[in-house]
Amino acid sequence: MNKDLEKRTIETCFSPALFPFIQTSENFIVVIVDVLRATTAICTAFENGAIEIVPIAKIKDTLKYKNSGYMIAGERDGIVIEGADFGNSPFNFSKENVKDKKIVITTTNGTQAIEQASISDTVVLGAFANISVLANWLYKQNKNVVIFCSGWKNKFNLEDTIMAGALSELLITKGFSTCFDSTYAAIDLWNIAKPNVLAYIEKASHRHRLKKIGLDDVLEYCFTQNTTNVIPFLRKHTLINILKN
Amino acid sequence: MNKDLEKRTIETCFSPALFPFIQTSENFIVVIVDVLRATTAICTAFENGAIEIVPIAKIKDTLKYKNSGYMIAGERDGIVIEGADFGNSPFNFSKENVKDKKIVITTTNGTQAIEQASISDTVVLGAFANISVLANWLYKQNKNVVIFCSGWKNKFNLEDTIMAGALSELLITKGFSTCFDSTYAAIDLWNIAKPNVLAYIEKASHRHRLKKIGLDDVLEYCFTQNTTNVIPFLRKHTLINILKN
Repeated sequence: MNKDLEKRTIETCFSPALFPFIQTSENFIVVIVDVLRATTAICTAFENGAIEIVPIAKIKDTLKYKNSGYMIAGERDGIVIEGADFGNSPFNFSKENVKDKKIVITTTNGTQAIEQASISDTVVLGAFANISVLANWLYKQNKNVVIFCSGWKNKFNLEDTIMAGALSELLITKGFSTCFDSTYAAIDLWNIAKPNVLAYIEKASHRHRLKKIGLDDVLEYCFTQNTTNVIPFLRKHTLINILKN
Repeated sequence: MNKDLEKRTIETCFSPALFPFIQTSENFIVVIVDVLRATTAICTAFENGAIEIVPIAKIKDTLKYKNSGYMIAGERDGIVIEGADFGNSPFNFSKENVKDKKIVITTTNGTQAIEQASISDTVVLGAFANISVLANWLYKQNKNVVIFCSGWKNKFNLEDTIMAGALSELLITKGFSTCFDSTYAAIDLWNIAKPNVLAYIEKASHRHRLKKIGLDDVLEYCFTQNTTNVIPFLRKHTLINILKN
């Protein structure tokens, strides 16, 4: 292991409200995670040929894109917003729907986290859907990593945490290290979840929220690793697939 | 189990920055946890006969007590503050030092959390030092419980989290329930830590912080259960031992 690699750390942030307190002070990449469902859906969209995706925090800001050839994907609390072409289920982002399209997306948690992180130099999106290709790409950059869990309305959630743990585990096998309690906790929780992720996530509150509104058909897909070969990368407030651009 | 008990929930808050987002909406007790070392030290002080303890968030606000017969206990980042009689090691709060005394205490994280929680109806302090007596007392109140981990400068920490998990586990055996991801995570982490808490806590960053400044002699004591038989209870900005008053 070379000396630079030894120095690279992984910090995990469990909520947008904790992002102002991250300690990793310079030269870092932010990985935004919103497994259910924003970052999984965006990975799927790029895998199926979307050209660019504009993440928008506020619903009203999506309107100006409506007549500029953008498709609108949007939800709040899992419910499709008025005027949107579809909601945020990854299954909506099929080849048929998104190939060669520009998309605007607004979600309950994920797009707010992206906006908040956009002050950082480098922002990418992570999900189980792109975990291996993301770990390989992060390995090639000479930067520390901050994994930013979107949570649920600023609250800690299990699904983003176990994804942070899974990604941290991969990065540590590649030579990263950590001294952050949050990352240790995420790895420990991932190790409990790993043998049967779907059974583990049964207790997650958002899993029940989705079930209540009939949107839990996506669960198995959202926790399946490496269904896509993309890295959503924020360039001037627009996400592109850095592996293609 | 009666119907009222079935309804009682446990929510865990991992940082003072997350306290504004707790969902438990009414009729709840806040349990402040700062295992290393504020809440452990305060339990020890009451066990050894202190009459009352005034938690103060800001160092400058301790001064006015100095000439009113109060002892001053204070630290920042583990270092004793100027003018204090001693720091926040539980070992300072010996019978010899504190019996029949009134004490003012200011710490890096715990006393800020107490101040923040003081808007709530009922605030008590928890540590491994009083875990069983606290669980029994909480069981007798007809209220939901919010476990408020003091963290480290608004960051998640392992030591407060495993204490939250240990307390939650006890409460669940008494009929409490939870639907909060944070509490599930705390219980899972506690279950990993439980077989050998001191070994588990080796990775906690604050454990290393204390070691660096030679204050890690308290570790074994801070993670030992039921060394005290007290419940620090906040009454008009002053802590008293509710089991004696």
